Amino acid sequence: MIVVHHLAHSRSQRILWLLEELGVPYEVRRYERMPDFKAPPTLFEAHPLGKSPVIEDKSEGIVLGESCAIIMYLRQKYGESQTMSAEGALDDLYYTHYAESTLLPLLVTRQRLLRFANSAPWYLQPLFHYALSAYREMYVEPDLPRHCKMIETHLTRNSWFSVGSDGPTSADYAMIIGLEALVVAKIVTPETYPAIRKYIEKVQARPAYQAALQKGGVFLYAKQTLATEQRGPEA
Amino acid sequence: MIVVHHLAHSRSQRILWLLEELGVPYEVRRYERMPDFKAPPTLFEAHPLGKSPVIEDKSEGIVLGESCAIIMYLRQKYGESQTMSAEGALDDLYYTHYAESTLLPLLVTRQRLLRFANSAPWYLQPLFHYALSAYREMYVEPDLPRHCKMIETHLTRNSWFSVGSDGPTSADYAMIIGLEALVVAKIVTPETYPAIRKYIEKVQARPAYQAALQKGGVFLYAKQTLATEQRGPEA
Repeated sequence: MIVVHHLAHSRSQRILWLLEELGVPYEVRRYERMPDFKAPPTLFEAHPLGKSPVIEDKSEGIVLGESCAIIMYLRQKYGESQTMSAEGALDDLYYTHYAESTLLPLLVTRQRLLRFANSAPWYLQPLFHYALSAYREMYVEPDLPRHCKMIETHLTRNSWFSVGSDGPTSADYAMIIGLEALVVAKIVTPETYPAIRKYIEKVQARPAYQAALQKGGVFLYAKQTLATEQRGPEA
Repeated sequence: MIVVHHLAHSRSQRILWLLEELGVPYEVRRYERMPDFKAPPTLFEAHPLGKSPVIEDKSEGIVLGESCAIIMYLRQKYGESQTMSAEGALDDLYYTHYAESTLLPLLVTRQRLLRFANSAPWYLQPLFHYALSAYREMYVEPDLPRHCKMIETHLTRNSWFSVGSDGPTSADYAMIIGLEALVVAKIVTPETYPAIRKYIEKVQARPAYQAALQKGGVFLYAKQTLATEQRGPEA
């Protein structure tokens, strides 16, 4: 049995999606976020860094952190025998690392900078907004269009992140939450990056993704990206 | 022939170390940083994100970015047949992903926040220092001792990141620059985290590491960590 230590509204949601696709039985231990959106201290009981996701594979006596290490481990052990072309394997390798090493750190920093400025006491807000926006304009915002363009180009030409694949591989599990976050941030819309938007819809429509949503509890990124869709494109 | 697009004082230095360990011939194209320490726009000619490292493997017609994707690719193709224990393979997987997904984003953010505050015009400096330090105290500083403790504990018990290994594996190539950055930031000293400090010395003494230094040109992280050592421990 696999136990997933699952922080609400976090990158651990995709581990549930993967486990549903693999058909591996698992148990979810859900942790709610604190009022400042940080992970609760109870997560330290699962892992010394207090981060999510963490899985326990009881059959092996294994405890493992880091989203993409977990994805690689689960797919290798319980997974997919799909053979990829050399080109597809290289895409899979690239986007699996890119998701956690480059895209998500950028998006997490962006979200934290905005949240932190908004949570300052009222008399400090103008000061904090000014300084943190200047930082964001220097290190975050100029990169975003390049990232979106690279991903959009790839998804315009390919159904999945691994070229020639007929279903999700590691890179797709790795990438999904970053793409959902781009929709929530209103950077990706059906007008700006239609291929990314369509890709997200395709993933969210999969029975395994839907089953993972049921199992994991409320997931703001899915809720908000679906809601955006229902409301129609943003102005 | 492998071409490494190598940004000065960056995570691409470890790719040169890896290539030296593998004994694979390569060519270095070095890019100097701009006055604000950002990568120069010429890197966009090598890769759409303008980031380093990027390698070209001319024999395969391949262009690949993302440090750890490159490490995995090179080791798989040119590399090491060392067989790891199941436990060692899991460490290797964990620390390879941890390095780029968790440790380096934290350290890069820390360095940028400090640099950005210092580079503001003098009349804005107090304001920027105040706001950016508050952000750093919220999202960066509390994590650092946990990270160092986890790594110190691991290196107290093991010679390399992969348990039972008798030389570097992917995780070691992935981790080294983060550890050097912790020394430059004076967080790791021989007093605070002796096992990490000794591990760095061991890596830096390897002939392949030294050969990579010769080939890559000045590398501040090595220069400053060696200098720290020669000056003796910091107060």
